[in-house]
Amino acid sequence: MITGESDIIERYFAAHALTRGDIDVGIGDDGAVVRVPSDRRLVVATDTIISGVHFAADAAPADIGYRVLAVNLSDLAAMGAEPAWAVLALSLPAVEEQWLEEFARGFSGLARSAGVALIGGDLTRGELAATVTIHGFVPVDRHLSRGGAARGDVVYVTGTPGAAAAGLKLRQATDLVVPDVKSESLSEALLRPEPRIAAGRSLLSIASAAIDISDGLLIDVARLASASQVAVRIEPEALPLASAAAEIFGQSEAMRLALEGGDDYELCFTIAAAASSVLARASRTWDCRCTRIGQIEKGSGVYLGSDREAGPVRVFGHDHFAAGRSE
Amino acid sequence: MITGESDIIERYFAAHALTRGDIDVGIGDDGAVVRVPSDRRLVVATDTIISGVHFAADAAPADIGYRVLAVNLSDLAAMGAEPAWAVLALSLPAVEEQWLEEFARGFSGLARSAGVALIGGDLTRGELAATVTIHGFVPVDRHLSRGGAARGDVVYVTGTPGAAAAGLKLRQATDLVVPDVKSESLSEALLRPEPRIAAGRSLLSIASAAIDISDGLLIDVARLASASQVAVRIEPEALPLASAAAEIFGQSEAMRLALEGGDDYELCFTIAAAASSVLARASRTWDCRCTRIGQIEKGSGVYLGSDREAGPVRVFGHDHFAAGRSE
Repeated sequence: MITGESDIIERYFAAHALTRGDIDVGIGDDGAVVRVPSDRRLVVATDTIISGVHFAADAAPADIGYRVLAVNLSDLAAMGAEPAWAVLALSLPAVEEQWLEEFARGFSGLARSAGVALIGGDLTRGELAATVTIHGFVPVDRHLSRGGAARGDVVYVTGTPGAAAAGLKLRQATDLVVPDVKSESLSEALLRPEPRIAAGRSLLSIASAAIDISDGLLIDVARLASASQVAVRIEPEALPLASAAAEIFGQSEAMRLALEGGDDYELCFTIAAAASSVLARASRTWDCRCTRIGQIEKGSGVYLGSDREAGPVRVFGHDHFAAGRSE
Repeated sequence: MITGESDIIERYFAAHALTRGDIDVGIGDDGAVVRVPSDRRLVVATDTIISGVHFAADAAPADIGYRVLAVNLSDLAAMGAEPAWAVLALSLPAVEEQWLEEFARGFSGLARSAGVALIGGDLTRGELAATVTIHGFVPVDRHLSRGGAARGDVVYVTGTPGAAAAGLKLRQATDLVVPDVKSESLSEALLRPEPRIAAGRSLLSIASAAIDISDGLLIDVARLASASQVAVRIEPEALPLASAAAEIFGQSEAMRLALEGGDDYELCFTIAAAASSVLARASRTWDCRCTRIGQIEKGSGVYLGSDREAGPVRVFGHDHFAAGRSE
């Protein structure tokens, strides 16, 4: 009899949804009722993506559904958490069945592989935007944070920062002719970022600090430096650039994209120097690169290169309301 | 050095924010880390409000901040949950200090009185919209749901349904001259709805089913009927109308607003007939009315009045994507 918002969310997502044994009441009531194991802490994070800001207005609905979950999972990864449940608030100009089907497919595919159950939703009429609040677990008294880096620690990054920004640049440069094989790896980095959940979880017992670098390596490293009350020195020549980005745009532009580009859902983390061999063993099981890119020093801010006389860099990144960028 | 989204949320909300002892990591990292008591289940709900849809484009920022939390707390109330934490995703066309100050004041005032700590936030550039995901606790194996009503149960509602819709109608009827004292009570119902947290919590051991009626009494009662696989008979003459609504718009329009109007963050709930005296005692401590409005019968759908020959009513309410209302 009633066909409306709660029903729509249930109808499109129920078919693909993962179920979990820790859910007493799932989607479809005023709230979900779930169980947190007594030997775990709950980790909660939220991220919104908006059409024209975080994805192109003509993006494929499956990519949007994937993306809103991926960006949230990346926050869990940066806390070292095991994913559990998500709630989804979706705002749409109109209900189109096929659009919703594809959005749900993109969302649910990643949800299933990450072990995430959708436990709540809200559908409203408005400009195309999606907000997920993600929930996960960490062991009691053990989580990653931005604030634990200490002088002498070594700085690492997962994956190839700048790849997503290169993918975006490539889409915008319509006059550029590039072999498919090269453009595809960059498009993939842009459209289907892989949250580093496994890396984050194994870093729980190794890293001193961690952050996800989705706003850009420099700006997020600056946040880690600030939270840890230390300085970070990055060695630009150590940055693991995406080879396709360097080939298409040149080494120097690829490096700029790695430092300032956004949308890389990679982790930047620090470890005590003595933990290097433990990290080397652990990272062999990850499905991404893990590269040493710098070190932690006394002071504050971010420094580039080995010139000890040079001052800290001015930090640019994707902060939509950062001073000098807004209005 | 960095002034951007995370800093903005922290800056404006930190001053007013409640802190709680169950928060290991609060707002400001990639995620919050919190503790759920081992004798409690976690309740999670999410609701979005959008400018021009859920509030007027010229609404006072403090009222918007209050509203996004109130609508979420109402979902917790309908589950019988004790509020704990909220995360806020806020989308703004531009950052205006005074606007944010006032929004945070409206949000934090209610948060403090409800015992809610803000543990996460995301600020994005877009049309004015706010999404809260709210978290609360219920005892293990005890929560309210839509699905427990049984034949013979009695139906109740809190407050005076239709008051918020009358307040909205009054704002839109600019040619109407109404004494302040009458319009104020309706405006208050529209702009500062009081989530029925205390009522919901005391109903945990009394009610067989509950739902919040924010989309309209009839549509939400129909959802309760559907989830419980029963029919609901409402006695229209029993509805506790807001006296100002009846005086300004007449009895029959006030009744229509009570049945079909939205934005009443009241609870509709059912109890076994034998529990009436327990409810009478419990509801004396609530700061709202509690009125018997109908009963549960065999069958399905919602019936109005005592005429056993009349069919179920067609249900109207505020479901933004309901059939016949969308596109």
